[in-house]
Amino acid sequence: MTRVAVILSGCGVFDGAEIHEATATLLALDRAGVEVVIAAPDIDQMHVMDHQAGEPATVPARNVRTESARIARGPVADVAALKAGDFDAVILPGGFGAAKNLCSFAVDGSGCTANPEVATFLKAMNASGKVIGAMCIAPVLIARVFGEDKPIKLTIGSDAGTAAALCEMGALHVEAPATGVVVDEDNLVVTTPAYMLADGIAEVFDGVSQLVAKVLELTNRNH
Amino acid sequence: MTRVAVILSGCGVFDGAEIHEATATLLALDRAGVEVVIAAPDIDQMHVMDHQAGEPATVPARNVRTESARIARGPVADVAALKAGDFDAVILPGGFGAAKNLCSFAVDGSGCTANPEVATFLKAMNASGKVIGAMCIAPVLIARVFGEDKPIKLTIGSDAGTAAALCEMGALHVEAPATGVVVDEDNLVVTTPAYMLADGIAEVFDGVSQLVAKVLELTNRNH
Repeated sequence: MTRVAVILSGCGVFDGAEIHEATATLLALDRAGVEVVIAAPDIDQMHVMDHQAGEPATVPARNVRTESARIARGPVADVAALKAGDFDAVILPGGFGAAKNLCSFAVDGSGCTANPEVATFLKAMNASGKVIGAMCIAPVLIARVFGEDKPIKLTIGSDAGTAAALCEMGALHVEAPATGVVVDEDNLVVTTPAYMLADGIAEVFDGVSQLVAKVLELTNRNH
Repeated sequence: MTRVAVILSGCGVFDGAEIHEATATLLALDRAGVEVVIAAPDIDQMHVMDHQAGEPATVPARNVRTESARIARGPVADVAALKAGDFDAVILPGGFGAAKNLCSFAVDGSGCTANPEVATFLKAMNASGKVIGAMCIAPVLIARVFGEDKPIKLTIGSDAGTAAALCEMGALHVEAPATGVVVDEDNLVVTTPAYMLADGIAEVFDGVSQLVAKVLELTNRNH
């Protein structure tokens, strides 16, 4: 049976995983009948955003793994414990959490660093020919992890500044619409813009469902 | 244009709105092309649950409206400010927040009380012939608000204890499968079991999408 890891980065678009994108990913994987393991790094969030006010909240730190469990409806695995040999693919929903907690792109741009456990898992997956899917802003993490050594073809939609930063890190950016996917057939990486471009939640679900379908198609080639 | 209010109760199945059910509701409404206003009561959550550990967390209180904004991706209206005349229908996703923050069912069972602002809005909607949709555990709130004065036909799936409590409050319980809906044609109330019964997220999306379709169908009769 196909097994897919979904890496979350918290719970909420401005400081964690984008909830609709994460839910769309879980829905498409459930419809496809694959086994899903939800994981997150066991670290504090960069900060907590008040999503009502649109500004940082002055509250105690929240843990990425603990908050990700809200989307998972229960315990999620520690990314540090994941083994590439156990999975056929990994998918990363977006949300600022991907650029704040999984890497420091939101603060450091193309000079960002990646969470070491997440980077180790992604490199191990790629090295063993497994498939990687990433949506919204999460492709910046892929660009950071693989860099100039392994230029990955990917999309974050059409934002020129973000696309330029991706290229500075060594990736090859391709524009795509909200409901389209960009596939790097050589490196087995699939990306879609999701809320970087989507005009509403229906477009997000359409794009994410295409990403999941393509990820599973590439996975099946390995079987 | 049809306008629908969606009332959330936080962000996370164990202390707030169930994230997949809320997202499924927003997706179905977006696909139908209706205007959506997301609202929540501006009160503290009953408590904060650690969704990783499955137990209450010893952290400062979180505000229902502020946390609901995570699902909404931005500001949500205060339920106290909603006017029935502005809407054609209202839909309540489930999650324990519906039974902890919108009413006290999780603690008090059939002796529970409802949040007064939510109760006022639901009564005003019903009194003006508008449609109410509720899923998962949220129908307990409908039973509490309308009570024996106006017995509502509804479902929470097949849990005998919860069904008995609904009947004690004056509602008429009808069993339904996860992907079915129960429609009270006289009182314009539509309910579906969602995660009270669903075996996975795909069944939740199927049931919720049916609920939304039926709510909009009843709404159109009013036009």
